Amino acid sequence: MPIISVVIAEGRTTAMKRRFIRAITEATVEALGVKPDQVRVMLNELPLGHYAVAGETFAERAENAATIKEAS
Amino acid sequence: MPIISVVIAEGRTTAMKRRFIRAITEATVEALGVKPDQVRVMLNELPLGHYAVAGETFAERAENAATIKEAS
Amino acid sequence: MPIISVVIAEGRTTAMKRRFIRAITEATVEALGVKPDQVRVMLNELPLGHYAVAGETFAERAENAATIKEAS
Amino acid sequence: MPIISVVIAEGRTTAMKRRFIRAITEATVEALGVKPDQVRVMLNELPLGHYAVAGETFAERAENAATIKEAS
Amino acid sequence: MPIISVVIAEGRTTAMKRRFIRAITEATVEALGVKPDQVRVMLNELPLGHYAVAGETFAERAENAATIKEAS
Amino acid sequence: MPIISVVIAEGRTTAMKRRFIRAITEATVEALGVKPDQVRVMLNELPLGHYAVAGETFAERAENAATIKEAS
Repeated sequence: MPIISVVIAEGRTTAMKRRFIRAITEATVEALGVKPDQVRVMLNELPLGHYAVAGETFAERAENAATIKEAS
Repeated sequence: MPIISVVIAEGRTTAMKRRFIRAITEATVEALGVKPDQVRVMLNELPLGHYAVAGETFAERAENAATIKEAS
Repeated sequence: MPIISVVIAEGRTTAMKRRFIRAITEATVEALGVKPDQVRVMLNELPLGHYAVAGETFAERAENAATIKEAS
Repeated sequence: MPIISVVIAEGRTTAMKRRFIRAITEATVEALGVKPDQVRVMLNELPLGHYAVAGETFAERAENAATIKEAS
Repeated sequence: MPIISVVIAEGRTTAMKRRFIRAITEATVEALGVKPDQVRVMLNELPLGHYAVAGETFAERAENAATIKEAS
Repeated sequence: MPIISVVIAEGRTTAMKRRFIRAITEATVEALGVKPDQVRVMLNELPLGHYAVAGETFAERAENAATIKEAS
């Protein structure tokens, strides 16, 4: 331990994901006083249609935003 | 919170998944007395070969059912 | 499947949790067209100090709100 | 219950995954004294770039190993 | 990897849990061809009131069974 | 999103856990370019007897270390 499982939206670059993993690993080592090789990070990428706030998926949100933009 | 993580089998339509997300969000708002924007839903779709009951994956179950059907 | 895992804050009554479980089970049966005994629900209650938004735990948020109330 | 969720690296054969699911189901039935149909297993395959130890993803580790091999 | 997360009902002895952890670790090592120290197991014990099938928690199920027993 | 779920061993102070939550939130905001209030962190503390590497729980490991110390 610690085992860190992160849910993020699909679409980020490999480089950004690698920077992110290094950054939270370093933050964990420093704040919890553990060794780097004790820290495991797992990324779970969700399609925008599989994540929702207030019953609206991020895919619907993007569609609605595009519709409003076209109409304006 | 609440954060709702749902594991379902692959294969449902986008429309069905959107109805499902709205339905459990409404049920959560009503039963727990929280606001809609406090409710997050995450769908995790599993291939049939990655979900098993009693050691048999749903993919094996479908294959076995098809074999029986052919033999009858 | 479906397997529904819900993270909520500690502190709700047993009666409310039971109503909530029944409500999301019914919503799932109806929206996904599955049988009731295919639906499993798991509740994970987190202490307020173990859930954070924007780096602030709900425990800190409650403490800060109380401090503000005392000062006003 | 029990509900067993397993995170593994992408890349194993279907046959190996089926053997694995059967093996941990049997081990669970025997050790916990439950019936086979009470045991659910869910496999979550992660791409090598989404799993990291000590801040280094398994994809980076494979790349670095290949670089060292070329240089030697 | 593999990282194995198991949800079980509260109430088992320490000895049984240790036997269970050893058994699924051995089954994993053998079936997936990984080394023992690559296998991590996490047990998550749920109170009976936090696990439900078909909208009925295991706590309700136990209460209903006891009521039926008294009435018979 | 991002939703960050962290499994750690029981036993850390509240102050350390708050520092840790702030640190990984800041690291996430910076590396992924999201706003602080988009970042949710959930801590799951496991008893030492519920986390195992190579089939040995951290509780067993501590017991074995203590036995060796006594014998030396």
